[in-house]
Amino acid sequence: MASENSEVKILGAWASPFVMRPRIALHLKSVEYDFIEENLITKSELLLKSNPVHKKIPVLLHNDKPVCESNVIVQYIDEAFSSGSSIFPSDPYDRAIHRFWAAYIDDKWFPIMMAASRADTPEAKATAIDQLKEGLLLLEDAFIKLSNGKPFFGGDDVGFVDIAFGSYLGWVRASEQMGCTKLIDESTTPSLATWADNFCGHEAVKDVMPETDKLVEFALTMIPKFKEAAAAAAAAST
Amino acid sequence: MASENSEVKILGAWASPFVMRPRIALHLKSVEYDFIEENLITKSELLLKSNPVHKKIPVLLHNDKPVCESNVIVQYIDEAFSSGSSIFPSDPYDRAIHRFWAAYIDDKWFPIMMAASRADTPEAKATAIDQLKEGLLLLEDAFIKLSNGKPFFGGDDVGFVDIAFGSYLGWVRASEQMGCTKLIDESTTPSLATWADNFCGHEAVKDVMPETDKLVEFALTMIPKFKEAAAAAAAAST
Repeated sequence: MASENSEVKILGAWASPFVMRPRIALHLKSVEYDFIEENLITKSELLLKSNPVHKKIPVLLHNDKPVCESNVIVQYIDEAFSSGSSIFPSDPYDRAIHRFWAAYIDDKWFPIMMAASRADTPEAKATAIDQLKEGLLLLEDAFIKLSNGKPFFGGDDVGFVDIAFGSYLGWVRASEQMGCTKLIDESTTPSLATWADNFCGHEAVKDVMPETDKLVEFALTMIPKFKEAAAAAAAAST
Repeated sequence: MASENSEVKILGAWASPFVMRPRIALHLKSVEYDFIEENLITKSELLLKSNPVHKKIPVLLHNDKPVCESNVIVQYIDEAFSSGSSIFPSDPYDRAIHRFWAAYIDDKWFPIMMAASRADTPEAKATAIDQLKEGLLLLEDAFIKLSNGKPFFGGDDVGFVDIAFGSYLGWVRASEQMGCTKLIDESTTPSLATWADNFCGHEAVKDVMPETDKLVEFALTMIPKFKEAAAAAAAAST
């Protein structure tokens, strides 16, 4: 069993939904940690050494031992720290259902969100938005079943699916502000609309959920720089 | 806790690596189950009702309650049935490392294997094969660290990473037989070569690991039919 009296660090970046996940999990467990903001263009030696396979954030360092991949880290935090509320349900079947929806969100729903943001024709964008909304209807239905009348997918408190889906809410709101259609609204997905407000206002979340204006500014100024750096790196390696 | 004295079914298809995963896990746990071979072109009502989101195999039915997604099912089996050996290590950090490598295999390595099989130019195929081999070197290194001198990623017995990676071995061997370069060989990845033989000969695996000749025949006869059916369905929906 991992020692709980220990030093915890997160290597991350404030705008990344994936970095929010372990931070929220640590807040739920009342675990203190150092947050180390990475420069995503140069990348630190510590990041490259800690995650040599993917070279990506987030990385959790627990007494200098690295754990990578956001959902793997969240599960690790739940298992390694017994303080605070449990992030997973206790019943194996319920845990499987939560893992299923977390995988759906990352493997199916998020790629469509990326396709919508990158669409270079109005038709492609409209198709992606329709698919995103279909996915939200599935998630509305899943929320009603999993929450059982309570405020979160996890019931009374934020759980694994809340963290997996909720981490994207900042970018959903930024997309809406940048002219995308309203994605989570009271008329088509009323339960998700209420859940989104509850999630963003939760004590474990509110300090790490970026302001929408800041994300919009980031999207307009920094993302083109990352693309330039990636293109330069690709050109240098050919 | 799920009742262990219960009825277990797997909806699947013999040639699918993903279907092998829950079957191996059930064998490790000595759980009896009915295997229901699905027709992947027509798809049964039971499959569509049990996995309405993805409409895909495998599905585990435990007392008629469905669990979907192969790695989610394997984790469920490990948690719901206490018989047999544990599929995950007991230490949270070790579990995180096993989850990391299982995710790498599905999210990074397998897509390259698919790209290699679908490459339509010799250059594209060569690039994909090189990337596959780079991935195998990473997995060789991971095996040495995780197995700690024992025969499996899981140590003395088959574990989560063994199941995740080993389920692809039938198709790796079929690809080699169909003229692809040798992927797992004794000179570049000697530990993986020995592991692959150990895995395929394991009691929990050998009855569900398809013969290479049968997979090659399946690839040459059935896969074109699936592509035709998918193209016809796409044409009908436009």
